[in-house]
Order: sequence, then structure tokens, then C-alpha cells
Amino acid sequence: MPQTTRIALLQHACTDDVAANIAKAHQMMRDAAKDGAKLVLTQELYTSLYFCQIEDPALFDLAVSIPGALTDELCDIAKSSKINMVASLFERRDAGLYHNTSVCIDDTGTLVNRYRKMHIPDDPGFYEKFYFTPGDPQNPGYQATQLGDINVGTLICWDQWYPEAARLTALRGAQLLEYPTAIGYWKGEPPEEGARQRDAWITMQRSHAIANGCFVAAINRIGSEGDITFWGSSFIADPGGQIIAQASDHQEEILIADIDTKQIETVRRMWPFFRDRRIDTFDELQQRWLK
Amino acid sequence: MPQTTRIALLQHACTDDVAANIAKAHQMMRDAAKDGAKLVLTQELYTSLYFCQIEDPALFDLAVSIPGALTDELCDIAKSSKINMVASLFERRDAGLYHNTSVCIDDTGTLVNRYRKMHIPDDPGFYEKFYFTPGDPQNPGYQATQLGDINVGTLICWDQWYPEAARLTALRGAQLLEYPTAIGYWKGEPPEEGARQRDAWITMQRSHAIANGCFVAAINRIGSEGDITFWGSSFIADPGGQIIAQASDHQEEILIADIDTKQIETVRRMWPFFRDRRIDTFDELQQRWLK
Repeated sequence: MPQTTRIALLQHACTDDVAANIAKAHQMMRDAAKDGAKLVLTQELYTSLYFCQIEDPALFDLAVSIPGALTDELCDIAKSSKINMVASLFERRDAGLYHNTSVCIDDTGTLVNRYRKMHIPDDPGFYEKFYFTPGDPQNPGYQATQLGDINVGTLICWDQWYPEAARLTALRGAQLLEYPTAIGYWKGEPPEEGARQRDAWITMQRSHAIANGCFVAAINRIGSEGDITFWGSSFIADPGGQIIAQASDHQEEILIADIDTKQIETVRRMWPFFRDRRIDTFDELQQRWLK
Repeated sequence: MPQTTRIALLQHACTDDVAANIAKAHQMMRDAAKDGAKLVLTQELYTSLYFCQIEDPALFDLAVSIPGALTDELCDIAKSSKINMVASLFERRDAGLYHNTSVCIDDTGTLVNRYRKMHIPDDPGFYEKFYFTPGDPQNPGYQATQLGDINVGTLICWDQWYPEAARLTALRGAQLLEYPTAIGYWKGEPPEEGARQRDAWITMQRSHAIANGCFVAAINRIGSEGDITFWGSSFIADPGGQIIAQASDHQEEILIADIDTKQIETVRRMWPFFRDRRIDTFDELQQRWLK
């Protein structure tokens, strides 16, 4: 089995024209395929504005059934362009039950798996707890999905701050942890605070690569929407935590990298962290607090 | 209660003269106290060379009982200099049972707690599994100890690669995670590989500060011993993961920083990661692997 996979991260702006956002992103998918990409990853909620800046029940109209017309279109692209993909969608599971969901589609055009965001933020301007039911522990739970030559662990945005989520996904065999994301500078916050937050965001995800000896891909949007200017900066880190490709903080970009899963074996032989985990001491990780 | 604490990290070289190493480090403790430090932290196994480069049963002679003559001396220094401290020792618990242990001593000269290293490495040149019995899950287990105005989570070296250990210590109320360490460049390895490893070491520990919204202190030795040139670079990171003080990679240094525990509250209000941990999904962290 070949061990090098060309992956493409789609970083772009969105407007309130959902059809136009979809058309743009799907054209980027086809373009990435022409560049030789075998795995294409979208930013979080790539079809719309980041709508969670307000709480409005009408916005549940943005949600789609999975499978449905949108995933059918993605399956067609995957099949015709011979690409595997992970796409981040707003899922309508049933009336009053919505999720922030990633779908895994393989290069035969088959919807093979989904992951529902486990960790849901709620901060001023990021009112996600209103929109997104947290993922069930088991249905589907944390997921690692074989897509072509690489096993992809699908996590989403706020999950990126939780080493537990990265670990549980890596333990399932993920060779690449991918984080579609919507994060940016907050209007009125000093630039140096924004710079610190962006640095923390990069550092945290690089640490998942190091702790788990696997690749990490973070895919963020650009553009200003309301009070947020999304900082782009999508990147790919190798199993040693080194950034091997990174996009700008303001331009639309198909970020390409060739990743060689043999590096995982090399790094894990040097730093065999999985060998030494003290699993006999981890039961209290299921507690909220220990004071 | 005052919320700012001056802490001092003691970074130095060692020789095969244990008495001289001890004399040097203990003088650094007194000097740190004169500089106003209220909490003093030693590097890993500060009394000796990093002896784990070979497996030799005679080297168990380096181990000491706790309490014992060495901790008595440390208690005297703590009391007379009015400092709290965490010191990293090679502990003889009983015949055939040795640990890599940190002791917590308060400014009244009382040995108030200990922590026994949980995660034990074993790599070429770091034959620690020969010397160190892993810490028991409960005796003492992960520990957070109030020392003056700050609660200190005591972890040790290889623990630094495990987000689980940082989390379990933070959940106990640690405001500062401290990692005495012995890590460096390996003879014959290309300099760029050493630079990557040093960067990963820093990144991983900064991530513990970010994920847990607390301070982190890493205390490493300098100097060449056998095949290893220890890279120093001791540092303190704030609860946003920013490095607020860092030592050089080759000089002996008392690294001082004033840390304000109010920052913990500020950062955790902005990024309330503890609120959203999906503790209902973490049971499988107690598994070795999930494939």
C-alpha cells in the first residue's frame, strides 16, 4: 500500500449566499483533485456564514439531512474526481435535534461514516450550545475512518482544546487528526490578545500531533463576519509537531501537503508514548473536578 | 491572600561529586530566597549525574530514604530561608524498590507531601525502567500541594508527554504544574533533529498550560554527561501558554518569575474548557488501544 497521501485543506470566505458558498467550495474540491489530492478537507460549516453569533430559531433552516441532497452532491464529486473527503455540515437529525457533523465520503462516492462534534462551546459570539446537540457517546462516538491510504480521525473545532478527544481518536487508529474550525479575532480585542489566542490555537493542535505521534490538519475559514475576523492559518503538522504547510491569515487557498504515514512509525519508535500510558491511573479522568 | 508568588527554577550542571552538586544547588536555593523567591524548584535528580545512561545495580547506592538526612537538610534550608520548595530525589522506599520522587517542603521546614513519577521512559541512554518503580496509583498518586500562596502540581519529566497526567493533576486544583526534567541533545544526532525535539518538548508543556488554564514550570539541567548534552531552556508558561521567562541552553541560572494566580481565573472565564469536558465519553481512556 502506498504510504504517501496528498491532502488538500480548503480555506475560504463565506457570504450569506449558501448556493454560492457551496459552488465555490465544490469547485475547490475539483481543483484540489486536479492537483493530485486524494483527501480533501473542508473548513467548519463550509456552506454558510458562521451563524452562531446570534441565537435565532429560523437559522435551523440551514441544517440538512444526512444523507440528503447535499451529501449526494458531495458523493458525486468524490466519485467523479476520485477523491476521499471529510466535509463539515450542519445536520438535522430530527425535529429539535441538530448536530455539528462531519461526513466521510470515499472515492467511490460512498458516504462511509460521520462524526458528531462532542465538545460544544458557548461564549459571547459563539452561541453553539443553542444550535448543536453534543455528539452521543456511542452513536457514533469518536471515529477514525479509513479513507484511501490514510486513517482519518474526525474532530471538530472546540474539540481541539481537549487532549482527551485527540487521544480517544488516536487510540482508534487515526493517522491524521483533522479539525475543521471557525475561529478568529474578536472585534475590539487588542491585536496582541488575538495573536496570543492564535498562537495558543496552533500550539494546542501541534501538541496533539506530538502526544499521539500522528499528523494533524486544522482547516479554518477567512473573512470578516459580524464581530469576528476569521484568522485562516490552516495548517498541517507532522507526527513530531512540526508545521509542514500553513496558509495565510487572509487569503482563500487550497493548502496542499504530501504526508507519509511511515513517519508515524519512525516517530513512535523514538518516543513510544503509547507504551507507557498509565492506564491503571486514568479512571478519575471521568470526573469533573477532584477537589 | 496575596495572589502573586515569586518562583525560582534552579538550572545547573552536575558532576560525579554528589556532595558538590548538593552544595551548589542548596546555595542556589538560599540565593533564590535572597532574591525574594517564595517557591523554589529543582531540576530532576539534582544531586547527581543523570545516571540512567547505563544499567548498574551499584547506582542504587545513590538513592536516599525519605524522610532522611537529605530531606532534613532541605527542611532546614526551607525553614531558615523561609521558602517553599519541590525537590527531585532518587528515593529508596525499601530493598529493591526505588522511585523517582519529588518532595514538597513548606516554609516552616515541614516535609508535607511527595509525588512518585508515574510515567517511566526506557530508550537508548535513558534506561529508567531499570531504576524507577512507577508511582502507585494511590500512594500517593497524582498530587497537588498547597505551598504558600500557590497550589503546585508535581509531575516529573516523562510525565510531560502525557496530557492525562497534566489533567489529573489540574483537576486536583494545581495552579502551577511543575516538571523537573533531564532531557537533551543526543550525541551523533543531527542538530536539526535536536532542535525539533527541544521544540516539541516546549510545545507539549505549553499545551498543558493552555488545556488546563494554569501555569507550567519546566526545570532542566545543562552540561554534557556521556552521550547527552542537556539543553537547559528551563521555562515558565502562563495560563494562556505564553512563555514568560526562559533560561539559556548552556548556562547555570536561577530563573525567576512572578506569577499571579488571578490570571487563572481570567483565562478560564475566556476559555472555559473545564465546563465542557465530555466526561461521559472518557471511559475508554483507560484502554491501551482501541483497534
